[in-house]
Amino acid sequence: MSKSLFITFEGPEGAGKTTILKKIVERFQEQGIDILATREPGGSYIAEQIRQVILNPAHTEMDARTEALLYAAARSQHFAEKIEPALAEGKIVLCDRFIDSSLAYQGVGRSLGINEVYDINVFAIGNKMPDCTILFDLEPEVGLARIHAHSEREINRLDVESLAFHHSVREAYLQLANKYSERIQIVDANRPIEVVVEDVWRILQTSIAK
Amino acid sequence: MSKSLFITFEGPEGAGKTTILKKIVERFQEQGIDILATREPGGSYIAEQIRQVILNPAHTEMDARTEALLYAAARSQHFAEKIEPALAEGKIVLCDRFIDSSLAYQGVGRSLGINEVYDINVFAIGNKMPDCTILFDLEPEVGLARIHAHSEREINRLDVESLAFHHSVREAYLQLANKYSERIQIVDANRPIEVVVEDVWRILQTSIAK
Repeated sequence: MSKSLFITFEGPEGAGKTTILKKIVERFQEQGIDILATREPGGSYIAEQIRQVILNPAHTEMDARTEALLYAAARSQHFAEKIEPALAEGKIVLCDRFIDSSLAYQGVGRSLGINEVYDINVFAIGNKMPDCTILFDLEPEVGLARIHAHSEREINRLDVESLAFHHSVREAYLQLANKYSERIQIVDANRPIEVVVEDVWRILQTSIAK
Repeated sequence: MSKSLFITFEGPEGAGKTTILKKIVERFQEQGIDILATREPGGSYIAEQIRQVILNPAHTEMDARTEALLYAAARSQHFAEKIEPALAEGKIVLCDRFIDSSLAYQGVGRSLGINEVYDINVFAIGNKMPDCTILFDLEPEVGLARIHAHSEREINRLDVESLAFHHSVREAYLQLANKYSERIQIVDANRPIEVVVEDVWRILQTSIAK
């Protein structure tokens, strides 16, 4: 049985996470490596329903604490149903967004406190933090411009938050990368996608070799 | 402005909470006292949607931690939207189920731990515990027999849990009443409803006079 590895991709919308994830998965598959690519809510029926409550643009009156608890709930279900079983089988799991998104967006962006949001997430997933996290760093202005240029992706409630919010989220991510420097690797996402993919692939190969 | 008071009703299904709540509200109204009677999710659109995810009988694969986080999320929203504003206006608020339900059902019934479930609920509502909680104590067998005799009330996912689960929940409630003896008053619910109402009314009058 091969060694499991839990990888997460983090960063703002528009950083290219989803595209890069597909290309990285292809590379693993070309090597014959069994990989589960997922994103919250990860195809879990229950978690998907929770996500619908969170992202409904009509829910402008949603309390910030409610939002943080809903993300933790969806994460708990996705983790228990999909991620944990795959890791137990020795698979590589690559998840688009995980706990650091909550720490950055809810803990700092919504001013709930990183430690407070961390605690409810520890309730959700126990001490099973990712083995390796790639932070796709990008100026918020660049990310938002990319989103608006791609009309096929619907604008959701989080996109319309103020630019100041997105700047505070970026700062939070960079703080987290400093705090968890063993786990989180920063990648400059403001470069051609193939260059970024090479960087990520190299980091993951190092992580697997450990 | 009158003094606000936050009252909660707790206990198993079939204890008569809903019926007694209506009668107590009528008595307050007869005295011209402004009272908000509510229950989770309390008519909050967002909290109602969360409740639908929780109570869907199809969700048998729901992780216990997900369930606890969803209850905390619905509570946070209901509290912020309905309860807190009413208390701020000096109203009496009477809520059918609140934090103690989570401590008993999720903390003990689901074996997640009372302290762990308490912590995520403190995240949800801060330190705003009820001023007075009535615990309608009843043998689980009696409560379940009452539910099944009333076909107009749909059987939900929680009703079909094993009797052992309901016994552990009852024990948990009694432990909580012991731990929070200043806040929680036990009322024997295995008596005619009018007798129980008199007991509750007397307790609440004492609480208001404090």
